[in-house]
This record gives sequence, C-alpha cells and structure tokens, in this order.
Amino acid sequence: MNALDVKAALGAVKKGHVMTQAAFDAAAPALRLDLIRLQQALRKADFPVLIVLEGVFGAGKSEFIQLLNEWMDPRWLITHAYPEKTDRTPPHPIFWRYWRDLVPDGQIEISLSGWYSAPLRDRAYKRLGKKKFTSALDDIVEFERTLTDDGVLILKYWFHLGKAIQKKRLKSLERNSLRHWQVTKRDWADWKRYDSFIATADALIARTDTASALWKIIDGGDPCRRCHTILTDLRDRLSAHLKARRLAARKKSKSPPKRRAVASSPDSLAKLDLTEAISKEDYGKEVERLRARLHDLYIRTKDEKIATIVVFEGWDAAGKGGCIRRLTSGLDARDYQIFPFAAPNDEERAHHYLWRFWRQVPKDGRIAIYDRSWYGRVLVERVEGFAQVAEWQRAYREINEFEGDLTDHGIELVKFWLHIDRDEQQKRFRERERTSFKRWKISQEDWRNRAKWDDYEIAVNDMVKRTSTPAAPWRLIEANSKPFARLKVIRTLCEAWEQRLDG
Amino acid sequence: MNALDVKAALGAVKKGHVMTQAAFDAAAPALRLDLIRLQQALRKADFPVLIVLEGVFGAGKSEFIQLLNEWMDPRWLITHAYPEKTDRTPPHPIFWRYWRDLVPDGQIEISLSGWYSAPLRDRAYKRLGKKKFTSALDDIVEFERTLTDDGVLILKYWFHLGKAIQKKRLKSLERNSLRHWQVTKRDWADWKRYDSFIATADALIARTDTASALWKIIDGGDPCRRCHTILTDLRDRLSAHLKARRLAARKKSKSPPKRRAVASSPDSLAKLDLTEAISKEDYGKEVERLRARLHDLYIRTKDEKIATIVVFEGWDAAGKGGCIRRLTSGLDARDYQIFPFAAPNDEERAHHYLWRFWRQVPKDGRIAIYDRSWYGRVLVERVEGFAQVAEWQRAYREINEFEGDLTDHGIELVKFWLHIDRDEQQKRFRERERTSFKRWKISQEDWRNRAKWDDYEIAVNDMVKRTSTPAAPWRLIEANSKPFARLKVIRTLCEAWEQRLDG
Repeated sequence: MNALDVKAALGAVKKGHVMTQAAFDAAAPALRLDLIRLQQALRKADFPVLIVLEGVFGAGKSEFIQLLNEWMDPRWLITHAYPEKTDRTPPHPIFWRYWRDLVPDGQIEISLSGWYSAPLRDRAYKRLGKKKFTSALDDIVEFERTLTDDGVLILKYWFHLGKAIQKKRLKSLERNSLRHWQVTKRDWADWKRYDSFIATADALIARTDTASALWKIIDGGDPCRRCHTILTDLRDRLSAHLKARRLAARKKSKSPPKRRAVASSPDSLAKLDLTEAISKEDYGKEVERLRARLHDLYIRTKDEKIATIVVFEGWDAAGKGGCIRRLTSGLDARDYQIFPFAAPNDEERAHHYLWRFWRQVPKDGRIAIYDRSWYGRVLVERVEGFAQVAEWQRAYREINEFEGDLTDHGIELVKFWLHIDRDEQQKRFRERERTSFKRWKISQEDWRNRAKWDDYEIAVNDMVKRTSTPAAPWRLIEANSKPFARLKVIRTLCEAWEQRLDG
Repeated sequence: MNALDVKAALGAVKKGHVMTQAAFDAAAPALRLDLIRLQQALRKADFPVLIVLEGVFGAGKSEFIQLLNEWMDPRWLITHAYPEKTDRTPPHPIFWRYWRDLVPDGQIEISLSGWYSAPLRDRAYKRLGKKKFTSALDDIVEFERTLTDDGVLILKYWFHLGKAIQKKRLKSLERNSLRHWQVTKRDWADWKRYDSFIATADALIARTDTASALWKIIDGGDPCRRCHTILTDLRDRLSAHLKARRLAARKKSKSPPKRRAVASSPDSLAKLDLTEAISKEDYGKEVERLRARLHDLYIRTKDEKIATIVVFEGWDAAGKGGCIRRLTSGLDARDYQIFPFAAPNDEERAHHYLWRFWRQVPKDGRIAIYDRSWYGRVLVERVEGFAQVAEWQRAYREINEFEGDLTDHGIELVKFWLHIDRDEQQKRFRERERTSFKRWKISQEDWRNRAKWDDYEIAVNDMVKRTSTPAAPWRLIEANSKPFARLKVIRTLCEAWEQRLDG
C-alpha cells in the first residue's frame, strides 16, 4: 500500500455505511461457527496466528478482544498488551519481549500496544527523528518477515476514527458518570495531536504494509460493521492460509532428493595452521595471566552494563567444553550462565527456530555462553536435511538480522569456531572409546556425523563467509592443541572486550 | 543434626587428614565412571537432583563445580548462581526465582548463593533479628520439604575452613599477582566476622538439617580429600535415591483400587442459595457502577504496587469465562494477564505440580487471572486418581504454604468457586450441544466428569474447608444466575481491594 492509498483509505472509512444490530445478529452465528471450526483446524496446523491491533483511542480495539474471547476457545487465544516503556534504556533488545511471548504453533496471539506503539507515539510527539523512525520501521519489517517466512500468519488492523468523531466519543465517555475513567489526560493529549498521529500512521502503514503482513484499516465508527469487517477478514485470511500451508506441506514432502553440496565459499578453514601449539609450562603461566586480564575486563563490562554473548561452535570433540570451563574459571558464577543447546524439545519445535535463543539473551551487564547456537540451522539442519533448502538459505539473512538486533542494542557478540582436522578428531573419538569415563561422550551419531565431514566443511565455510559481520565476525580457533585453543579463546575475548571498552 | 553436633562437625574438619594427589588420581577413574553411569540412569528417572552449596569463601565451591562439569555431561547439569539482592523490595516472592529455575526430572541443578545466602549474611551482619532469621529458615524447610516430598533429591554441602586457614588462603591469593583479583573487600569484611558467620551457620544448619534434606559438612582445607568426600557422597546418595524411587514406583503400581470418597467436611456448597438472581435491567445499571468502582480501586492497587491473583474454579459450564470477561472489561489490558490452565504439557509434567503456577506469579502492581489453578491437584487429580492419595492429601498443606508465600509477600489472592447445581449444569450442557457455535465447548469428557458429581462435591467441600485461610478465604459464588454471579464476582474483588487499601 503506498502512502497515497493509505490516505485515501483513512479518509474513506469516514464515509462507511452503517450496519444495523439486526443485520449483525443475523450474520453472527454462521461467522462464529466458521471461526470456531477454523480455530480447531489451526490447533493441528504448523503455524501460529499473530493479530496486531493499533489505532486511535476509542475505536473499538478492546471490544474486539472481548468479542473474540467470547466466540473462540480462550485457552488458545492469548492477548499480550505491553505497558509503555518508562525505562529509557531497557535491559534487553527491543524485540526480545515480543520473541519471548510468541505463542507456539496452533495458537492465536493478539498483540496490543506492541512493536508499533513506540515508533508511532515517539514520532507523533516528535521525540523521534524521521531517519530513526524509518529505521525502526525497517527493523519491524525484518522482524515480521522472519516470522512470516516461517509460516506465521500476521494480521494487522488499524482501528480508525475521524478527528471529530473521536472528540465526540471522548466527550460522551466523559459525560457518562460510570465510564469517564476510561478517558485519561493522555487520550486528550493524543487527540490534540490527532493530525500528527494520523500523518505518522500514514507513513507507518505505507512502509510496513508488506505482501506477507498486510494492514487492514477498520472503520471504528460503527461497532457492528467494525466487528463484522474484522471477523470476516480474519476468517477469510485464516482459511486461505490454512489451505496454502497444507498445499505447501504436500509439495514439500515431494521435494527432490538432496544433491551433494558444492563448495562455493573460500575455504577459510584450510588457511588455519593446525600445528600451532604451546608447552605445558608456558600454558600454565599464560593461562593465569590471561585469566587475571579477563577478570579485570569482565568487571569493567559489568560496571558499564555491557552484556556479552559468547557462542561456541566447532567440530565434535573439538574441545568446546574444556574452553568454556577455562573461560568461566575467570568469571564469577553469579554473572554468567552457560546454555547448552541440544536438539529442540517439543515446545521449542512448535516455535520459530530462533525463539529458544532469543529467550536466553542476557540482560545488560551479564554474560551468556552458548554451547552450540542458532548456527545449527545452517550446519546440522542443512547437512542432515532437517531444514528445507529455502529455509537454511534464508537463515543467513535471518541470523545477520538477529545478531544485528543484539549488537545494535549494545551486546558484545563473540563467536568461536573451534577447528580440528579429521585425523585429530579420529584420535579423540578413539580415545573417548578407550577411556571408560569418556565413553559417554561418544556415540554412533558422532561417527555418522564424521562421515559427512566434507558436507560440514562446505557448510562451515559458507557460514563463516556469510555471517561474518563487522560487529560480529567469526573467530576461528586452531584447536588441534587444546592448550593453544584455550588460551586463544580467552585472549580473543579479552581483545574483543578491550576494543569495546577502549575503542 | 542438633546444634552441638554441628559445632563438633565444624570443629572436626580442621583435623582432617590429608589425601595425596596420587591417592585421588587412583580413586578418580572408578568414581568418575560411577557418576557418569548414575547420571545416565538419572536421565530416565522421575526426579531431579538439587545440589546446594554454601560455606566460607575459598573453601572450594567453584572448583567443585568446575570438576563436576568436567566429569559429567554438562547438558544435564545446570548451575544457578544468584546475585545478591540489591533491591530492598524485590518484585516477586522470595522463592519465585528458585521455583522458576528448577530443572526438570532427570537433570542436576547446582544452586550457588541460593536461598540460604540472604538469611545467613543478614543474620551474620545483625541486619536480621533472631525471630525473623528463624522464620526465614522455617520457610526454607517448607520449601525443601515440598520438593523432597515430590521426589527431588536435595544434597546440601557446607564448605568449611577454619579461621586461621581462611586467613592464610586469602593472604596467599592476594600475594599471587595473577589471582589477587579473586579476593574482594567483602571477603575480608566477611572474614572479620568469621565467628559471627560460623555461629550463624551453626544455627542455620541445625534448624534446616532435615531427614529428607541433610547437610554434609565438607572440610575445604585439602582439595583432594574435599573433592573425594563430596563426590563419594553424591554417588552414594544418588545411587540410593534411584533405588528407593524405583522401589516406590513398583509399590505404587500395586496400590489397591480407589475406594469411593466419603464426605467428612461440612457441606459448604449446600448452604448456598442458588435461587439468587437479578433482573436484566438492574444488571445493566449495576455492572456499569461496579466496573467504575473496580477501575478506581485497580488504579489504586497499581499505584501502591499491590499484585493481585484472581483464581477461578468451578463446575464445568459454571460460567468462569463470562465472569472473567466482565471483570477484565473494567481493567486495562496492559496490566493484567489471563492464564488458562489445561492439562500440563510434557515440560510441566517433568516438574513439581506447583512449578507452572509459580512461573506466572505476577510482579508487584500487576494482576494475574488464573482460569483453573493449582487446585486441580485436590479436585480433578484426586477424583480421577491422577494423584496418589498421599499426594493430594499433603497438597492441602503445600497449597496453604504456597499461598502463604504469596500473601506474605503482599500479593492479594482472591479465590472464587462458581457453584451451580446438577440441573443447571445439565441444562447448560444440553444448550451447548444444541447451539452450533457453542458445541466446541462440550465434550464426552464433560459428561464423564458430570457422572462423578458426588465425588467432586466431596472434594470441593474438603478443599473449601482445608484451604480457606484468613489471608485467602474461598469466595463461594451462587452461579445458577449468570448475571448475579458476574456482579458478585466483581463486587467481591472490589471489597477485597477496599479492605486491603483502607484496612
């Protein structure tokens, strides 16, 4: 929808014809039945529905939520309403709370005063410049696209009222001795800025009205017509989406067999010198020195409320656990948390793959260590075919956007790839098998993964090339020598923190 | 363990003999293998392990955590370390964060600076009177008993060092140019209060050393012996607990068939006058008036940062949903959240039954509405035999303690039972079946539950009798007339808030 269309649409709603209560009552039973049946079909579907409500005060958003809760099974219909952020510097990235609250497949979420509210209000009150406003909207488009690409049905409704009608409604509410509390000073302040709000809404809708997440403008003037319009739209779009997803699922199961991967990115791994090593003595001295340096820096990041995420990826048996333990022994256990990520559980599988990683994003001043991470999408899920080709291919962009959200918020993101060669891995696997108390660390699956070494190598090189950004480059660690790798990991983190603190 | 024993034990650890590194190395492989095997057996067991670490600085808590992480599979071994509360008035009840973090069955959790830290420090520094200290310890005993009754294995270790040895260790760390950062001003301040700390620890251990959650005192003086002692103890107790639980499970499956319940509590339900009703006109006027009153009060609770939990229980078709919708239409969607509780999912089933309710406890100033609740334990779980007799019988006490934690923190807890009679329920069921868009609300299960009306009635009367406390009495609502019930619910909440705000 371009800007002119929006203006026309916002204007047109004033002239909408009236729907009588009798007409609505006549249409209601069939519509209600349709919606119930669709909700039941949705329960078994592989996507959630996200209903976004925005608009002017008094245009009927709350009434719509009440009605939907009455008509549908409220157990699978969750409303999230967000208080205005009073905190000028929230401790998490902007989208963190929206990710955290996302409902799983099969459910409907209504988002009230969600991600559009802050840019809309701040811009209408001129607290936000045009450039930042546009950039905030672009972030929203990225956020919504990440969801819709995964199958989420996003329905966005703008509840509209003309300026004069809104004034009348505010006045009438105020005169009602029992309802006057619904009108606050802020509502009048907003009304005084009506034109600014609508101009901002106009720009906002034009910029965020994408093919996969359309806005629909709802005339809030007439309660019956308003409800009928939105419920009909909800029914039609949900029904169409259910059909489309079923069709897509059928196609997917017929997709051609996987071809072998072909190397296209430069072989960054080959450039590493795996003979790098260090004597036990030097290691002992150096590790103490580095730990003291690390501790000093970590106290400073804590003071400056910088959050850090350290990601560990690497070949099986590359020594991730050992590196993590050496790293954390220089930190205070109260300030970091280690998150080991294995295969997703049922609840996680019923969400976007990024959901479980978003949930663990640390607050300002804290450290999160991810033992494996979202890069599973472009590594194991790609190589094993758990993700469709289109899915892992678009994951590079999604990951870069996700990491952009983190680093834009000020999180220090340090990503390690621990690299060993085939022979070293075989040696370590065999040692694990020989040593009784290490045997649990090795399974048939490890040997199976090893057989796909070439495919993984291509996937790793692609990952390094496509997700090394200036704010979050990959740090490749030569790990044939465990002591060398452990030192380099701590040193690299020290350097990243130093650059951040002093740079 | 009585106080004298503790003193003796704390004293005895000074004289402990030394274990050589060679002796430890000789014992390690077998011990390590045992622990790995036990961890694997634990993965399939129906309980988690909770390791609580407390003690003086420098006695080896962190080293133990490092070692355990090295020896065991770190994916199922989670450390939670809690920052000292700087917030004088935390927004949640004390035990909320420990409940939130509890690991599911099959996993091991290490708790560092957990629930013992605040009472210990505050008492050692005389910030906490003796009475409050004792009462805090009693709350801890209740918390731990609630967990161990459910099968959680709690292992508590006090890491001890003599005063002179601790001083030596602090000094030696300070002299080490690379490790001096490990010693902070606070550690020296604590050391100066050594005697006060130990006296407090003595009282703390004596009071919280229960049969199901024993303390073990670990001599922190000798690293090898320390590790060997604690790991051996962990092995032996975990092994014994696994056996005991398996035995208990076998017995459980052989338990005799359920007998019919016999009424023992007064029939509170029979006393309700279900002919109470109200005309449509009066309802319309009254509901507006009440909503305005409700809104005014809710703004005041918000200002005073009072959190509220409203619990709705009642017969199927008693009108819980309708009451909730009328209630929330007087509130701002940003300030409340509705939590509908159906049967627990897999993750919830792998936790204590109270876990999922603890998770949703609202922050100060917010409102949580529970559509069904923890009372399922003594209603559906009792009647259907999902909970063992011993389980639902002790649930009354557990629930009272849980609600005590909430109300002690200042949460306003309002519990509604919506009561209709058998005929009214049948009428509503039939109507649901007849009305196409209400048919989803009724299932064969509802008819089956209805057949157990007598058993449920006994369970409800027991519940009302045994969980009506001064701070959280049951509010019984005559609900044969929907309008009457809706008004009474809103009015009762208003009255509860008024009493709280003005009383």
